[in-house]
Amino acid sequence: MDGDAIAARRIAVLLEYDGTAYCGSQYQENGPSIQSELEAAVNNLTSQSVRAAFAGRTDAGVHALGQVAAFDVSSRLTAAEVARGLNHFLPPDIVVRQARDAAANFDPRRHATRRLYRYRIVNLPMRPAIDRGRVWHVAKPLDIVAMQRAATALEGAHDFAAFAPPFDGRTQRTLQRCEVRARCEQLSIEMEAQAFLPHQVRRTVGPLVEIGLGRMTQEALEAALVAATPSSIGPTAPACGLYLVKVTYDGFTFDPSDSGSE
Amino acid sequence: MDGDAIAARRIAVLLEYDGTAYCGSQYQENGPSIQSELEAAVNNLTSQSVRAAFAGRTDAGVHALGQVAAFDVSSRLTAAEVARGLNHFLPPDIVVRQARDAAANFDPRRHATRRLYRYRIVNLPMRPAIDRGRVWHVAKPLDIVAMQRAATALEGAHDFAAFAPPFDGRTQRTLQRCEVRARCEQLSIEMEAQAFLPHQVRRTVGPLVEIGLGRMTQEALEAALVAATPSSIGPTAPACGLYLVKVTYDGFTFDPSDSGSE
Repeated sequence: MDGDAIAARRIAVLLEYDGTAYCGSQYQENGPSIQSELEAAVNNLTSQSVRAAFAGRTDAGVHALGQVAAFDVSSRLTAAEVARGLNHFLPPDIVVRQARDAAANFDPRRHATRRLYRYRIVNLPMRPAIDRGRVWHVAKPLDIVAMQRAATALEGAHDFAAFAPPFDGRTQRTLQRCEVRARCEQLSIEMEAQAFLPHQVRRTVGPLVEIGLGRMTQEALEAALVAATPSSIGPTAPACGLYLVKVTYDGFTFDPSDSGSE
Repeated sequence: MDGDAIAARRIAVLLEYDGTAYCGSQYQENGPSIQSELEAAVNNLTSQSVRAAFAGRTDAGVHALGQVAAFDVSSRLTAAEVARGLNHFLPPDIVVRQARDAAANFDPRRHATRRLYRYRIVNLPMRPAIDRGRVWHVAKPLDIVAMQRAATALEGAHDFAAFAPPFDGRTQRTLQRCEVRARCEQLSIEMEAQAFLPHQVRRTVGPLVEIGLGRMTQEALEAALVAATPSSIGPTAPACGLYLVKVTYDGFTFDPSDSGSE
């Protein structure tokens, strides 16, 4: 509007989304993605074409309570105004919970020091209606104690090759936490690590549920972990139960007072 | 299939549904209802045209965790088979959690001795994405203590005319419980009574939120209760936050072991 050049700045956003309608977090040719919706909203708000980088890749149907993305934009709007403005243009199933300015070199993926995923299961004979698409429905009764014991055995530093498709790179990871909690028929499995292999969470939840159903032993799980053969353990839990809950950085946080739903 | 006549029996079903896509629980000309979907599923399962009666009328967009309906059908299927069979034909946003045989004169509406409704509010600056359509989003901070005090003042036997549209009948009701609970930014308001006036829950939640926002005083609420002028207090809270949670009968229950999500 006026002739002054506005310097570009890097803005980081904390995103919540229902992934049901999207082909994933990253841009894809074959359908709408969280990235394409975010970039379109930035374009609507600022008339600028930006490329957004994401902390974690989430697959089609996977949800987020605390995905982190960043993009460079020239704007006189405050970060809070950017958040409100983007929410005006974003569809109802995506929301910017917070926005803040970040260092020019802030990389939401490479600078992450920890990622927390939660997998939700409903263990009832009948399928859920209200929570459909947001939980994995397991109809037969699960042995929670067996699942908890198996989850604990996966914690620590291991070669997780068995829990991922063939992967071009190191498959050692440190699983800082793998915890199964149950409250009535609602289960949640929380997994925390600096970084995960592709599909690692869903490929861990699948075997844990097999163990809970009595169809796999803890010994088989541990043997697969030790053998570390790619893709050697299954099945993969469905996308709809998975949530990227929180991404942690050294020296960079969003306002914790507004992160109540994690 | 064979020539033996099968006596009709009354079957009661415990229903969970997401009301977003429906014009309400009761049959209506202008769109799909829970009743029309249930009756269609019974017809698909048994080839019989039935008329289902419901415990409580829920409006367009209102949800249920424990609605009760009943219908008469001639079938050799067990109640559990009826439940599974109906779930095969019902859409994903409606589910029969349980079915059981009921007395031939069982009337889910008139025999109910208590109804429990829950109203869910999310109190955060930004709108929810994952819970959109399933909670009322209130952006400004709510004074929970003020809401709790006002809710308590409504408990007991009163003329609730102010909290309903003009109503042809007695407007005295006994509100056995009206309780505001908060956990982080999630609020729930639970109301329990043998029977409610039309829209009474939403017309109570609206003023309670006004009090929480500091825009109405407890004295004004109590004065409206005493004056008992129809429709004299507002606003009406939106439908999307309301859940019919449980209906209670003397001497008739569904299996409580399968009612964990109430």
